[in-house]
Amino acid sequence: MEIDDEILTEFYDNRYAIQGMLIYRKSALIVVREMQKILEENLEKAGHEPVLFPVLIPEDILKKESEHIKGFETEVFWVTEAGKNKLDKKLALRPTSETPVYTMFSLWIRSHKDLPMKVHQSCAVYRYETKQTRPLIRGREFLWNEGHSAFKNPEDAENNVAEIRKIYSDLLNMLCIPYRIHRRPEWDKFPGASYTLAYDTIIDGKILQIATIHNLSKKFSEAFDINYEDEEGKHKFVHLTCYGPSFGRLLASLLNIHKDDAGLKFPTNFAPTQIVVVPILTKGDKEEVLNYCRKIKEKLDKFRIVLDESDKTPGDKFYYWEKRGAMLRIEAGPRDIKNNVVVVVRRDTKKKEIIKSDELNSEKILEIFKDIDKNLIETAVKKFNARLFNANSVDEVKNLAGKGIITIGLCEKEECRNEIENYVSVLGVEEKGKKCIMCGKEGRITYVGKTY
Amino acid sequence: MEIDDEILTEFYDNRYAIQGMLIYRKSALIVVREMQKILEENLEKAGHEPVLFPVLIPEDILKKESEHIKGFETEVFWVTEAGKNKLDKKLALRPTSETPVYTMFSLWIRSHKDLPMKVHQSCAVYRYETKQTRPLIRGREFLWNEGHSAFKNPEDAENNVAEIRKIYSDLLNMLCIPYRIHRRPEWDKFPGASYTLAYDTIIDGKILQIATIHNLSKKFSEAFDINYEDEEGKHKFVHLTCYGPSFGRLLASLLNIHKDDAGLKFPTNFAPTQIVVVPILTKGDKEEVLNYCRKIKEKLDKFRIVLDESDKTPGDKFYYWEKRGAMLRIEAGPRDIKNNVVVVVRRDTKKKEIIKSDELNSEKILEIFKDIDKNLIETAVKKFNARLFNANSVDEVKNLAGKGIITIGLCEKEECRNEIENYVSVLGVEEKGKKCIMCGKEGRITYVGKTY
Repeated sequence: MEIDDEILTEFYDNRYAIQGMLIYRKSALIVVREMQKILEENLEKAGHEPVLFPVLIPEDILKKESEHIKGFETEVFWVTEAGKNKLDKKLALRPTSETPVYTMFSLWIRSHKDLPMKVHQSCAVYRYETKQTRPLIRGREFLWNEGHSAFKNPEDAENNVAEIRKIYSDLLNMLCIPYRIHRRPEWDKFPGASYTLAYDTIIDGKILQIATIHNLSKKFSEAFDINYEDEEGKHKFVHLTCYGPSFGRLLASLLNIHKDDAGLKFPTNFAPTQIVVVPILTKGDKEEVLNYCRKIKEKLDKFRIVLDESDKTPGDKFYYWEKRGAMLRIEAGPRDIKNNVVVVVRRDTKKKEIIKSDELNSEKILEIFKDIDKNLIETAVKKFNARLFNANSVDEVKNLAGKGIITIGLCEKEECRNEIENYVSVLGVEEKGKKCIMCGKEGRITYVGKTY
Repeated sequence: MEIDDEILTEFYDNRYAIQGMLIYRKSALIVVREMQKILEENLEKAGHEPVLFPVLIPEDILKKESEHIKGFETEVFWVTEAGKNKLDKKLALRPTSETPVYTMFSLWIRSHKDLPMKVHQSCAVYRYETKQTRPLIRGREFLWNEGHSAFKNPEDAENNVAEIRKIYSDLLNMLCIPYRIHRRPEWDKFPGASYTLAYDTIIDGKILQIATIHNLSKKFSEAFDINYEDEEGKHKFVHLTCYGPSFGRLLASLLNIHKDDAGLKFPTNFAPTQIVVVPILTKGDKEEVLNYCRKIKEKLDKFRIVLDESDKTPGDKFYYWEKRGAMLRIEAGPRDIKNNVVVVVRRDTKKKEIIKSDELNSEKILEIFKDIDKNLIETAVKKFNARLFNANSVDEVKNLAGKGIITIGLCEKEECRNEIENYVSVLGVEEKGKKCIMCGKEGRITYVGKTY
């Protein structure tokens, strides 16, 4: 089901004069703030220092690592003038911040005592997309968090990759977004990386990359001369990693993975409106009912809760808030007041529960929320698993393309790969283990699918 | 007293390859996050919707209001290329966001029911400063919050100005930053505004503008065709206001206004480290003392609290944390454990207090914090008031220039103003009330001073 435009405009406006640049509005920013808060807290607990680097990168710095710039040069926005002057040196709008961060790492890192050094920032990055843009999914300005870390040796860098996998996986679990982690093939890794792990989810059968983790080894530290003096006084290059999830794509996933025929649904912590209180008004008792509802709202004010006092009918209000993914509805009318109860309706199952007023408190709500989230992730995982396929022939791949993630065998010959890539992209490769569906020779377990 | 470079680097690094663009580091970001949180909460309580607009503004949109672009055209960074292409239309890095916001207001506002419309965003803005840059005070990229609002009539716009004055004043009071609100003279108001109110504080005798509020009346709404249908079906232009404090300058004020010979001080809510626990170790009891201190830290973990387990001497630790503005020090040694007490030392007065362990809790700390803040604001106001002067002659103005805010009489003749502006800038003007110190004719009460 498509999401109503009317509701999408509460998340973003796509009518700005520059294609691929959105105006984020309240509902989107509530979700992004929550994601950002959880992620930043966990990164900082794991020893990351928050930083904020300038948006502009001088051309010579961006070009210092040759593979890296090759990967980005067709999509960089360049500032060439300021005021009425032409600049001596072109300045790039950051497409990602490895290069500026590394110019500072080379100043900040002197000794083994400075390591590990881990920093992160939440910011916007800029890519001049030539493919068709798509709100939240493929934009020319997008919001993300990027982490950049330096280590003494490959082992520490590997441990960091594991640590970040845990942090990202925890966030995705809270978002109830199912995913697979794929090791990208050589030709699709981050420009300059020794390997790239990507978090892929599935929306409507197509694959969306929502986060990546790159082990850069020493390529960048050599280019940027980031070295440290070890315990024996020897100078060594650091081992670098970098990683980031896209907040825009996570939001797109939330909007598209959990929705049903009645509209949006959210994991409770991320719902722009978590609870709506709907007074069931009859003429005489209006004030009494409203007061009763106001007290409910006050009692639960640690949540994002709305009391809908508009003059719509209760039915219209139910419909309005279901579409927007308010995950719990509390109804109260004269009869409920008399019985000292409220009616609580879950957005996911639409089950009604009658709760005594004095038992309605934050703990009770959190208990219901926990159950809603459990249901959301189970439903999402079930749908996700139904999108996982195996294929043993090119025809099968053709048939399954656009329906999910397909496991095949593929060898490393370019002609076999090229043929497959007419229909799908290669998402990930394992070491070995499966015969090539093209030529039948020894191949690797390979995951493919149509990507956004 | 100058702040140690070693400590400033915990707030920002000024060695990035682009002049006037800082790398914000942990201590600065803690302060900025706290300011931002308080400000955003209060703006949203007052009906502002959070939004985030793109950083880029097409040239024709930026140039739509002629006075506005005249005010900014010498300081705009222009994106002219993307990838390997020259862009058809130049794109500005936002120097401020009135023009993009108004292109959307003209779509979002249709009827009187859409009004008032209030939005705000926290973001970075870009100005190609040709004057000498200065970290946090005059940069080419700076962090701020900007509010943009539309109203049916001038009265509602005026009420909004009053509402924002209250919100900004509350924030400044929490920051213990003394200020004066000046109505800027005609020649120094925001380009396109009908009037500008500015919050000015004093650092080392020079004036720093930390926030502004602009009443734009209908100039921009006419340029951007932002109109609404009133109750009678007539189309009318909206009245606009805009406003913003600079987080960088607020941080500069915090760093410079409260410091003393021992180093930095902060209003307790904003201290990067609020509490430091220093174990007083003797050889035998090391583990016992550390455990005691760890428990203290756990008990107070809602604060930004550090247990300094380094191998420095207690004296060196005191010195280290005083310089960084940890506002409360808790010491505990074997004797304190025996007596079941801790020693608490305030950063501001350096007074020691012995507190029973079981009376040491968050409430107790908040009580002390409240008193520290009271002391900070009183001290700051005293220093501020000592910087307020009256002058009755140009010689007096010359003498007082650079020492604070000077009240004079000044008439509206250009020659009188020009002479005065050789020595000081005009910060604010009242309606009337004082004879001109230049020509002796009827003039206005006028506030002048040397500005950053």
